[in-house]
This record gives sequence, C-alpha cells and structure tokens, in this order.
Amino acid sequence: MADNSNNGMNGKTPNDSKIEMTELVLPNDTNLLGNLLGGRLMHWMDIAGALVASRHSNKTVATVALDSLDFRHPVRMGELVILKAKMTWAGRTSMEVAINVYAENLKNGNVILTNKAYMTFVALGADCKPSLVPPLIPETDDEKNEYIEAEKRRDDRLKKRSKE
Amino acid sequence: MADNSNNGMNGKTPNDSKIEMTELVLPNDTNLLGNLLGGRLMHWMDIAGALVASRHSNKTVATVALDSLDFRHPVRMGELVILKAKMTWAGRTSMEVAINVYAENLKNGNVILTNKAYMTFVALGADCKPSLVPPLIPETDDEKNEYIEAEKRRDDRLKKRSKE
Amino acid sequence: MADNSNNGMNGKTPNDSKIEMTELVLPNDTNLLGNLLGGRLMHWMDIAGALVASRHSNKTVATVALDSLDFRHPVRMGELVILKAKMTWAGRTSMEVAINVYAENLKNGNVILTNKAYMTFVALGADCKPSLVPPLIPETDDEKNEYIEAEKRRDDRLKKRSKE
Amino acid sequence: MADNSNNGMNGKTPNDSKIEMTELVLPNDTNLLGNLLGGRLMHWMDIAGALVASRHSNKTVATVALDSLDFRHPVRMGELVILKAKMTWAGRTSMEVAINVYAENLKNGNVILTNKAYMTFVALGADCKPSLVPPLIPETDDEKNEYIEAEKRRDDRLKKRSKE
Amino acid sequence: MADNSNNGMNGKTPNDSKIEMTELVLPNDTNLLGNLLGGRLMHWMDIAGALVASRHSNKTVATVALDSLDFRHPVRMGELVILKAKMTWAGRTSMEVAINVYAENLKNGNVILTNKAYMTFVALGADCKPSLVPPLIPETDDEKNEYIEAEKRRDDRLKKRSKE
Amino acid sequence: MADNSNNGMNGKTPNDSKIEMTELVLPNDTNLLGNLLGGRLMHWMDIAGALVASRHSNKTVATVALDSLDFRHPVRMGELVILKAKMTWAGRTSMEVAINVYAENLKNGNVILTNKAYMTFVALGADCKPSLVPPLIPETDDEKNEYIEAEKRRDDRLKKRSKE
Repeated sequence: MADNSNNGMNGKTPNDSKIEMTELVLPNDTNLLGNLLGGRLMHWMDIAGALVASRHSNKTVATVALDSLDFRHPVRMGELVILKAKMTWAGRTSMEVAINVYAENLKNGNVILTNKAYMTFVALGADCKPSLVPPLIPETDDEKNEYIEAEKRRDDRLKKRSKE
Repeated sequence: MADNSNNGMNGKTPNDSKIEMTELVLPNDTNLLGNLLGGRLMHWMDIAGALVASRHSNKTVATVALDSLDFRHPVRMGELVILKAKMTWAGRTSMEVAINVYAENLKNGNVILTNKAYMTFVALGADCKPSLVPPLIPETDDEKNEYIEAEKRRDDRLKKRSKE
Repeated sequence: MADNSNNGMNGKTPNDSKIEMTELVLPNDTNLLGNLLGGRLMHWMDIAGALVASRHSNKTVATVALDSLDFRHPVRMGELVILKAKMTWAGRTSMEVAINVYAENLKNGNVILTNKAYMTFVALGADCKPSLVPPLIPETDDEKNEYIEAEKRRDDRLKKRSKE
Repeated sequence: MADNSNNGMNGKTPNDSKIEMTELVLPNDTNLLGNLLGGRLMHWMDIAGALVASRHSNKTVATVALDSLDFRHPVRMGELVILKAKMTWAGRTSMEVAINVYAENLKNGNVILTNKAYMTFVALGADCKPSLVPPLIPETDDEKNEYIEAEKRRDDRLKKRSKE
Repeated sequence: MADNSNNGMNGKTPNDSKIEMTELVLPNDTNLLGNLLGGRLMHWMDIAGALVASRHSNKTVATVALDSLDFRHPVRMGELVILKAKMTWAGRTSMEVAINVYAENLKNGNVILTNKAYMTFVALGADCKPSLVPPLIPETDDEKNEYIEAEKRRDDRLKKRSKE
Repeated sequence: MADNSNNGMNGKTPNDSKIEMTELVLPNDTNLLGNLLGGRLMHWMDIAGALVASRHSNKTVATVALDSLDFRHPVRMGELVILKAKMTWAGRTSMEVAINVYAENLKNGNVILTNKAYMTFVALGADCKPSLVPPLIPETDDEKNEYIEAEKRRDDRLKKRSKE
C-alpha cells in the first residue's frame, strides 16, 4: 500500500463508492438466437466500473485495462442483468474495480453469476492528464485480500506490457 | 388487503423485489443547456418500476398509470442518476411501485432527491390478458403505511377515471 | 389571466405553436409481448410538449411537472403513434401543454385515443434561470375552457406541493 | 392512370394518408460543427415516406427508389425538423410519395424548406412478395399535376434502369 | 480536371482515402417483415461517403447531394452489409464519392451488390464556410472514367438546379 | 492442429473471413472530456470478432472469452476507429479471432494502433448448442505463428479456468 500513502487526500473505503446497476436485455441487445451480445455486456461492465472509479476519485476517468474475461452462461432476451462493482485497489492516479455480473430470469427468479472481471481506470484532470486519487482503505478481510491480489495483477500486467 | 388474500400464491415482501438502477447522463440525454430531458428520466423510471413489478409477479408487465410527478431539480450532463424502486401494493393483477430518483454530482459526491413517483403496472399472461400476482406482505411500519396510502391513491384514481 | 398581462411581449395563440409528431413502434420500443413500453411513450410525450413550449417561448425549456397519466390501451409493435400537443396556459415563466396520444393500426387504419396528459414546462435563459414567456391568447371556446382548467390544475399542484 | 384502374380496391385520396413528423436535432444527430448529418435526415425522410405508403396500402412497405436529393441549407443542433409527406402516385403494387422537409429555428421561429424528395415504395404481403395497393385519386389541381409528373419520373427511372 | 489544378495543395489518389465499413443488420434496423429499412441503409451510406470526403480533405464535411438511388434487393435481419466508398471527383471545395453496398448472407456466404450511389460533399472550415480541398489524382483507367462521368453528373445537377 | 482435422468440413484460410470495420466517434460515444468510452470500443471489437467467426463458420456465434486488453492511447470525439479482425485458430466448435484497433485523426491523417485483443467465440446450432466449424488453414508464416500462439493461449485459459 506504499505508493498511495502520502498524496495528501483522505482515504475512502470500498463501500463509499460501490454501485449496483440493473439492465433489462432488449431485442437490440441480442444476436439472432436471442442471446445477449458479449459486447453489450462489456459496455455495461465498463460503465459500472467507470462510475465506481469516478465516485472514488471525484474525477472523470478513462479505461486503462481489462483483465481476461470468460462468458460462462448465455444471457437471454428479457432477462435482468445486475452488475455489482466495487473498488479493489487505488494507486497514485489509477484504480482497479471488481465487477460481478449476475443474470436473473424474471419468470422464475433464478439468479446466476455470469462474469467476473477486474478493470483498471485512470483519473483525469481537466487537461486530460492523469490526476491524483484518494487512497483506498480496505475494511473487511475480503477487501484486504482483494487489495493484495490487485497489486499482484498490476505487477503482472506491467511486466507483460514491458516485454512487448 | 382483502382483495389479494385468496389468489392461492405465496406472498412476497417489498424487499424480495426491490431494485436499484444507476444511469450516467450522456450528451444525447440532455437539452441544449445540458440538463437531463424529463422524458429520458420518465423512461428510466418506467423501466425501474416495471422490473420491480416483473420480479414480484414473475410475469411480463405493462404500465397502467403514473401518479402526478414533479421535477424539482435540474439534473446535469455527467451526473449520476440513481433510481430506487420498491413495491408498495399488490392487488389481484395490478401492482403499485414507488420510485425514488436521486442525482449525484460525481465531482463533489453531493446527492439530492429529484423525483418521487408512484406507478401502477398490470401483470400479463402469454395471451396479453391480466394475470394473477402474489400478495404483497409489507414488513416495516413504513411499508405498512405505504400500503394503506397506495389503496387510497388507487381509490382516488378509479373514482377520477369513472367520472371522465 | 392576470399574472401574464404585463410582461411586455406580444401574446400568441395556441395555434401558433401546436405540433404533430408521428412515431412508428419498432422492436426496441416494446416489451417481450410486443407492447409499447410506457416509458418510451412518456419520452415521446415529453418531447412533443417541450417542442410546443419552445415554440411558444422561443426559448429552451425544462419539464417541471406531469399530471397523472393513464395508459388505457396497449399499443402494439408496428403501429403508428400520433402525438398532438397544444398550449393550454402560460404564466410569467411557465407554460402548460396538453398532449393527446393516438395509436393507429396500419393494417386496418383504426385509430384510438390512448393517452391524454398535461405537462408543465419552464422557459430558461442562457444562465439556466427561469425566463419570461409571451402571454397565451386562447381563441376558441374550447381553448378558453382549457385555460381556466389549467389555472385550477396549477393551483391544485402548488397547494399539494406546499403541503409536502 | 391506366394501370391501377381495375385492381378491385376502393381508391383513396392523398389527404387520406398524408402525415407530418417533427424531430428535434440532438447532439448525436450532428457532425463536429453541430450540423445535422445528411444520413440522419434521409433516415427520417424514409420513415415519413414509408408511413404514408403503409397508410395508403394498409400493408408493410419496402423502399424501392429515391429520386436525386439536394441538401440546400445546413440544419443546426437544437433546430426542429418538420417532415410533410403525401402520396403522389400509386400503381399496381408500388407508390410514390413526396416528402418536403422544413427546418425551424426555435429561437426566432424562422422556417425554411431544406429538402424536397420523391421516394418510391412497394407494398409487401406476408410472403414478402409485392402486393396490390388501392388506386390513388388526386383531388386538387396540384395533386393532379403531381400525379402526371410522377408517371414521367417513373418512366425515366425504368428507362435508366433498363440501360444499366 | 481544370478547376482544381491550382489550389496549392498536393493531390491525393482515390486509394488514399477509400474506406470499407461493415454493419450487422439488427432487429431495430428492420421493418415488421425483417427487411433492412431503406433509411438505415441511406444513413450508413452517408457516413461512409462523409468519412471518405473527410479523409481526402482532412476537414469536416457536409452532405450536398445524393444521386438517384435504387434498392434492388431486400437485405434481411442478421445479414452483413458491406459498404465500399471511394472518391471519384474533387473540385475547389466539393467532392464526389461512389458508394457500393453489398449484402452478405452469413449462413451461406453469398454476396450481392444491393445499391450503388454517388454522393457529393463540401468541405467546411471552422467558420462552417466551404473550404479548399486537395485535387484528386485518378490513377487507373476505371478511376479516370469515373472522374469524367462525375463531371457530367455535376453539370447535370447544376443545370437541373438552376432551372428550379 | 490435431483436434480439427477430421470434422469433415473443407478448411478455410484466415483471408476467407477477415473483415474491416470503420466507426466515427460521435458525442454519445465519449466521456465528459471527449474521449471514446472503453466500453463502446469493446462493443465494436466484439462485433468485429463475431462477424469474422460467423463468416468462418457460417453460423451464429457467441462470445466465450476475451484475453486481457490494454487501452494505450485515448481516442477522441471526431476520430475514425478502424477495426481489422482475422481468424487465428479454429477447434471443433470454438474459434479465436485477433482484433487490431487503429485510431485515425481525420484532420491530419495520423493513424495509431490503440488496442490489440484476442477473442474466442463458439458456433451455435439452431438449438443454441455448440456446433462444428470448418478447420482453419493458416497460409503465411505470420498466420502459422499466430495459430501456434493461439493454442498456447487456449491451454493457459483452460488451465486457469479449471483452477477456479
């Protein structure tokens, strides 16, 4: 947690910025077989993640990276998509958000987890340059573990990128 | 609560079906001065209400009525709109949902209540005819009061309509 | 009609600003049973009303209030929605518009009135503050009655609001 | 008017099917300088023409041809686009519609004619094959002239096409 | 090629600015029989043409005219629309682009040419006034023929317009 | 290449199904600073990839996985986004597609590579179950290397998934 310890802002907890988004799958969101388009879901995930990062930083944010993503279950037209997004880590100007996606069948109330992703965002100043964000203060054990895992993901990502 | 007491379905509480929707105000959602269009907000409110009524009834629903609605504060481009919707009443085939709308300024975190509305929906069978819904079981004092108020609103609405 | 008698602008008649909008109900406008979403219709009604108020005031307008609204008949995918909107009342900075909504079945030409609503708008200056509008000059008996009714609705709305 | 004289349907006048559409130019409808995109306008013109042809034929229609089209005046964001469309000619299964487009500046009420186009549509049966339409009965001198002009345009178009 | 020979910019070839656009026909793009709406296709053609003219001129462009257009084959929901657009002519401030539209059936790979159109665009400066564009240098015999044909179409269009 | 050698279909090359998509960044595609939303770009990448996989398999496809993704450069409103997508690998029912994304500044013609991603799709039969696809026949050295790399990515992905 070293690199965000002294940027002079008051820290915030993951709870301070977490959000929930609910979307109904309409015909234009689906392919010819009535399944939700993967790209529409990624678009919603990006919005959910960006809103959390904006709430944490009180700034406009840009998407920097998306961890690998599996689509485990098809989501059908007429189902409800529920996105729950929460901060996992914050650095000097960048932030990681975990986004869990659930699909709910409105006819029988069944809910399944369809996707889980980590996305990284950077806060931007009015000059479109990276801008400082408050430290993140994980509270629960789960949040503390997520914070440590996020730092590993970040190291892996930077290593992989420097090799290219 | 008489008219929904014997339709043979297990009752559900308001908590069983309540939802939260979060929307970001984009340029196309605003007028030339950058304020959220009233019609876009009503569209979101209708979706939020319909999702709650669908969850309660496990059926497709149609909008039947909207109580009078005041727009108290302008919402600006780039702000977050948070809609919280919850069942207040259920009859044999129709349901009332309360929808509270909040606007959040992402730059300073300020949140204000901008609208409160009650909308009525009817559950539909595959033949597009009205179809039975489970009873609503209010739990808290607040939910019990809302239930009684909802019955008054319903009576007023039916009286007003029969006069036309 | 007292409060708009001396704002120094030339009055306009309801005919000067009335409009007609025609929309075709496409798949994305409908629920899973092929019925027009109530929220989409409210969105169109708000646009129709705002256009009339903009035409009357020659200014950008914001939605202030919507009177209670009943959805009497389902509108189906592929049908035509015709919105006719007309000024009923103008104050110093606010205006009321009546919006009648008709659905036309293109296969047999049948037309039904599906909704009637009154919406209130406020004219805005470039500073987003309320701004003066021309007086409304009702011409026909029908328009004169609507003007008187509109003043009653306004009083009721202000009374109800001051009680909250 | 020979080829539609005996298809056994009652004729209709241009007034029976004419429509008016009103659209507000929103940010996503414009280019980077705030001018309405030509393609958005053509999309609206096609919808207006198709609605008139659907109303005349009481059938689903498909666009067959568009006469040459000039865009004479830029239309600006925030302006009103008014489309007036009216039948000019009907054959056995195809119909021609005239579409006049006006732009209205809501700030000063100025209206200009920006485009005039003729579009041809074909009525389709449930099998997607061309299907008979009622004869068109022009009433005014203007409508009778338009009918004669439309037959010339049709001959020109068929000649041009057979040469390709 | 006389009128663009001395505007002091380096010429560009048709290859320098040609583009290819691919669109998937989704439910909202179609009529009730599942055929692509003519207006949606015209909208895509206008975007394709405008992008080519923007690339040639490095400026924002506005649509000036569309040559007559035939829709020869219905395009179906779920098919792929491929638009190929290429400069045919450039004057001092205006440019003509040829747009060929192909539909591809993804189930069997069949491709057909559905439309061919010529559209004229004008380059705009930051003041929304017409602005100089580079000369076009046709390279192949086909491009040289297109250039000559384009000048004829331009003459015809200007003559026709001056007669109105 | 073992597992797709004997499914009885004729192989296809990467060239047989590659596509190019061009999109213009409009206001609604951007955040408050005028930068393209990451989610909109992911949506376009998914469409490009799905079209390639549909073309290779002649079947409807669903998104199965997305490799990690970096957003290296902001894309601005008014810029052109060019997506080039090409098959890299095909198994029995699943396919991997490489998608390269370029941004072009229309004012100066500068083009940069902004993203590169690998996405996996599965072909679906009319019963929504996975369905056989033709083998992929890489031709160039580059395509042969991509094929081998794709198999490694697939192994990594399956290993990672089985650990969860």
